[in-house]
Parts: sequence; structure tokens; C-alpha cells
Amino acid sequence: MPPISVIDDKPEVQRVSDARDDHCPVIREDHTIIRLAHGGGGRAMAQLLEDVFRPAFDNPWLEQQHDGAVFDMSGAMAFTTDSYVVRPLFFPGADIGAMAVHGTVNDLAMCGAEPQYLSAGFILEEGLPVSTLRQVVDSMAAAAREEKVRIVTGDLKVVERGKADGLYINTAGVGRVLAPQPVGPGRVQERDRILLSGDLGRHGVAVMAAREKLDLESAIESDCASVVSPVRALLEAGIAVHCLRDLTRGGLASALVEIAETAGLEAHIREADIPVREDVSAVCELLGLDPLHVANEGRFIAVVAAEHVGQAMDILKRHPVSESAREIGHFVKGTPGVVTASSMIGGSRIVDRLSGEQLPRIC
Amino acid sequence: MPPISVIDDKPEVQRVSDARDDHCPVIREDHTIIRLAHGGGGRAMAQLLEDVFRPAFDNPWLEQQHDGAVFDMSGAMAFTTDSYVVRPLFFPGADIGAMAVHGTVNDLAMCGAEPQYLSAGFILEEGLPVSTLRQVVDSMAAAAREEKVRIVTGDLKVVERGKADGLYINTAGVGRVLAPQPVGPGRVQERDRILLSGDLGRHGVAVMAAREKLDLESAIESDCASVVSPVRALLEAGIAVHCLRDLTRGGLASALVEIAETAGLEAHIREADIPVREDVSAVCELLGLDPLHVANEGRFIAVVAAEHVGQAMDILKRHPVSESAREIGHFVKGTPGVVTASSMIGGSRIVDRLSGEQLPRIC
Repeated sequence: MPPISVIDDKPEVQRVSDARDDHCPVIREDHTIIRLAHGGGGRAMAQLLEDVFRPAFDNPWLEQQHDGAVFDMSGAMAFTTDSYVVRPLFFPGADIGAMAVHGTVNDLAMCGAEPQYLSAGFILEEGLPVSTLRQVVDSMAAAAREEKVRIVTGDLKVVERGKADGLYINTAGVGRVLAPQPVGPGRVQERDRILLSGDLGRHGVAVMAAREKLDLESAIESDCASVVSPVRALLEAGIAVHCLRDLTRGGLASALVEIAETAGLEAHIREADIPVREDVSAVCELLGLDPLHVANEGRFIAVVAAEHVGQAMDILKRHPVSESAREIGHFVKGTPGVVTASSMIGGSRIVDRLSGEQLPRIC
Repeated sequence: MPPISVIDDKPEVQRVSDARDDHCPVIREDHTIIRLAHGGGGRAMAQLLEDVFRPAFDNPWLEQQHDGAVFDMSGAMAFTTDSYVVRPLFFPGADIGAMAVHGTVNDLAMCGAEPQYLSAGFILEEGLPVSTLRQVVDSMAAAAREEKVRIVTGDLKVVERGKADGLYINTAGVGRVLAPQPVGPGRVQERDRILLSGDLGRHGVAVMAAREKLDLESAIESDCASVVSPVRALLEAGIAVHCLRDLTRGGLASALVEIAETAGLEAHIREADIPVREDVSAVCELLGLDPLHVANEGRFIAVVAAEHVGQAMDILKRHPVSESAREIGHFVKGTPGVVTASSMIGGSRIVDRLSGEQLPRIC
């Protein structure tokens, strides 16, 4: 255990001098590890925000130091939230900070929206090294720059040692809706086609391998990434996109079951058309996972009108994050809420939601 | 420890039958306590959302079962977030659910906005009784009805036993800005008056007393409440409200220091004009707390132009949550970022931010 008591026993420090006290030495509080005081709403918290968060998320809203951010909006907007509790915090290809930005931004994209503003709520564990926090915050800031979104408002809490596994992050996001018609499972129709943006399972397998310290021949990297650009391109081209869904917890299977249930239709997919990398498939077999249930962080399905499939596929293939897109199936009247998969050897099986807890703490 | 293994060992249950299977008995998964599976994105989670969350937060957005909510907005809007990690979850006068709604709604009010939509992100601890979760969710729903806000999008994660103290909640909120001019510390001017909406310290003391199991003669109840109606009334009356700040973590002292620092002014307050109930004062003395640092959940300060003080006070006194409002001080050029208090016996002291961790996990 780090010598927290030693740090806490330091003599009381002075407040940071203001601009008029140029001759006083500036003695700052110790910010080597997170202490409960960092969540107290007082001096330690103010300094931590100043040292770690404001430089990274630098923007005029945070400069205002107010209880929230104010900006202009007009027309239809989308609003979404996700908490991130992934364990470990860092894994091949991404970390909790990158996920907390890309995940929520992707949810906005799934509403047919252009992501614009994010909030960030941090729950930190007492004893967390500030260097770790800085690494996560810098990763969030880099992801936000890449996504062209601003982290405009936030909150920080600290819980006692032994809680929170280092840190949990919640982000909420708002964005301007680009889609001329609502995008959602209620709009899915008979004969609509299901397009999958790429191979399945890399995120879930990367996290599980890091957690279980599996000694893989080649590192499998998370697919964590933004899916905003292909979604924007589909909408701007006027493709009749009826539903979008990212394939996070519960994987492709749960997403399809949910859509089929809400739409009151049956989904049919062809397993042979679903790309899973060989090394991912091998780890799934080892861990007893079905790749259709494994979480992804940069994969989505687009349900589009049959007559637009060709054009939609051309668009998807032009964007790196969806260059391996495939048409994997379609919706039929059939039995509402059921998903069937025709297997590689000709048979057919019912695909159900993930049951049980095979992949906890994956996002 | 509850017999979680017994519950987990139950034979695999059927999926809830759909409308076409009327003759099949509906066997549902066990929802007595939260298991990791409830956070897995699969069947258990879908049923928990259906059983506990959707009936309580009932609204057309959640019915759409999509990754986010879409609604129309036009003009200036405010956006804010807070995570709630209060311990214990229930205490006299409120609970974590009521706080998670009123707290975020109050932050929107502090931006001069009319709260409209909330998101809710839950981090649940494995082993949490579902009855406890239901109680919290129902309390959130009641608070949302009272505030006339809709909880339109959400997220649910489950972490292992021993983490998260039952549950943590994050809410983010959006609302329409009513104030014709920006409301914030940057707008505070010399000679502006400081109006305090009521007595200090009840929330913090109520939580600490519940946590420490203090045997108080009379129960002190949290002041947790909405401050939206007096704020709306001030703005609609055209009062020159320059800044609003709710007095949560860090209390009145931290709020004033922050405003004084950002405004580049000195705040001066009169301690004799700051109402603290006698029983609250006694507990503060017992616990070694300064009421100026204690957290409140239904108290705010309004910094208004001097010429509007009379009218503003009349308005505040007409609303139950601010009926004991007082004018407690004003801003002067003085030393930027400093807050001074004239004491009851004639002296003057510098009021600083809360230092250290005297009140962890209070919100």
C-alpha cells in the first residue's frame, strides 16, 4: 500500500497565491495520489481540476468555471449516456478514457446525430496515482480532439480505497440530428437489409486477454474507434437508414434480438458472412465465448432499405473503420423477436441474447 | 452474505414468451438481488430494465428502446452533470435517488435554465437487493415528476461485490436557458449583493448523523429540494441576476471563494445574517465542522445588481424553498479572490475554501 499517511501528515499548505502575491512562494498541495480531500469541493479539488483536467480539456466552457455549460442548439438533438467500468483500465488498443469518449459519441451516431458536446463524471478511488488519472484524462482529450467534440462540463467524486477499481467514468453526450427521419428499431421494415461494419469480437477478447493475462502469440487489439464518419456519410448520401446499433455489451446477438423484438419482425443472418478474425475465434473457443455475444467498441449494424444496399456498401467501404463491411442478412415477417442464423454447413439455429455473466466489466 | 450461489445455480430459464406464445408459462429470471449478469447486456439486463426502470421512468423516449433520446431544442441550452456517491443511501429527508434528480436540476437552474431532460447512469454493486434499487428508482421518478423533467436515456453497469457501496448514480441534464444574459461568476460586478436562499448545513449534518448513527434529540432532515421555482421567478421578473451558485460540496465558503476568484473581486459577508438552525449548529460544533463549509442540497446564492435587491428578496420569500432568504453581503474591489466575514462580535476573518476531507461522500 502506498504510504498515504505520510502524505496526509504533511504540514498544512498555503493557498495558491493570486496574481497580486508575486513575491510569495507558491506551495501547492501534494497531488501524487488521489485522497478523499480531492473530492471534497475545497482547495485540493480546485487544484486537481486546474492541474489535470482543465489543461487537457481546454475550452471556453470550462474556463467559465460554472455549474454547467451553455451553448446554442436548434432543431432535433440527440442525448445519451454511458458509464464505463472496464477492468483493467488499460488494454491493447485502447483504455477506459478512449472508450468513454468513443463509446458515447458512437451512441449519438447511432441516433443519426453529429456528436458535439460531452459531459464527464469521474468517480475516483482514494489512492489512485495521479499519473494514472492524467494518462486516462489525456487519452479522453485525444479521443475528443479526434471526434471533434468538446468536453464542456464535468464532475469529480472520490470514494474510499478498495472501491471503484481506480476509476469509473460516466459521459453523457448531445449532438445535432442529421437524419431526416427518426433512426431506430421502430422504423425497421420487412425486407430491410442488415449491414455489419466489420469483424466481430476484438474489443471483448482484448480486454479478457489483458485481464486474464493470457499469453497470446499476437496481441489482439480492441476495435475501439469512432464510427461517426461512415454514419454521417450514409445519412448525407440520403440512404434510407432505418436503424443503427453499435455492438457493445451483448454483442451482435443482443442487438439483433432487441431490434427484432421492437420492430415485431424476425431477423435472419448468415453466419458465413460474419467476419471473425482467426486469432479472435481461437480465444473465443478457449474461453467458451460465442463471438456473436462478445462486445465490440467500434462496430455497428446499419439496417437499410433493400434498394439502397449497393450504394450503402460502397459508402461504408470508403471509410477505414468500416472498410470490411458486409451484408449479413435481412428482416422478414416470420416470428416477431426471433433471430435465426443459417450456419456454414447448411443448418439453421436460433440466436438468443447473451444469458448469464460470461463477460463482466467489459465496458 | 445472501446465498447468491443458490440463485445462480437455478436451472436455465426460458426467455419471456412473446405475444404469440400465450399458452407457454412465462418463467422470469430471479431479480431478488443484483448479479453481474444484470450488467451483461443480455437477457437479465433486459428484464431488469423492463421490471424496475421502464415502469418508474415511463415516457415515450424510453419506449423507443434506442441508444439515446431525440427531442427538439432551439436557442441557448444548458448542459451539466453530477455523480452521486452519498453514503448511506437513505437518510432523514432524502436519499441518493432524490439527490440525483434535484442536484442536477438545481445545477441547470444555476445556469439560468429551465430543466427539461435528464440521463441516468447507474453503477450497481453485485448483491444489491433489487428492492433497494426499486426504492431509489421510485424516489428518482417522484423527484422527476415534481421537477417536471423526463429521464429519457440511461445506462446500467454492475460491478463486483464489495465495490460501489450499493450503487452510484450519475445524472446529466439539459434545459432551455431562460436568462436573457449569461449567468455566471464572470458577470459579477462591484457592489452586487449576495442573497442566500435559506439556512445552512442541514443536508451535510443529516447525512453525517445518519452515517455516524448519532443519537440526536430531534431528527435533522436534509434540505434536499428543487430551487427551480424561485430561480425561474427571479429571471421572469427581469431581475439582473449576475450569478447563481448552489451550495453543495464545500458549502457557502467554497462557492464564494470560487466566484470571487473568477470575478476578480472580494466578497464580504456578515456572519450574523447567515441563518444556521440551533440543532445544526450544535452538531457542527460536536463534529468540528464550520457551517460555512457544510454541504447543502436545496440552498443557493443569487448575486444580483444592488438596485434589484428589494424586488429579488420579495420574490424569494414567496417560494417555500427560499422563504427564509437573507441578504448576506456584497462584492467590493478589495483583494481579488478573497472572502471576508464580519463576525457577530465585530471582528473580521478571512473565509477560505474547505481544506482537507472533513465531509467525504456527502453527495
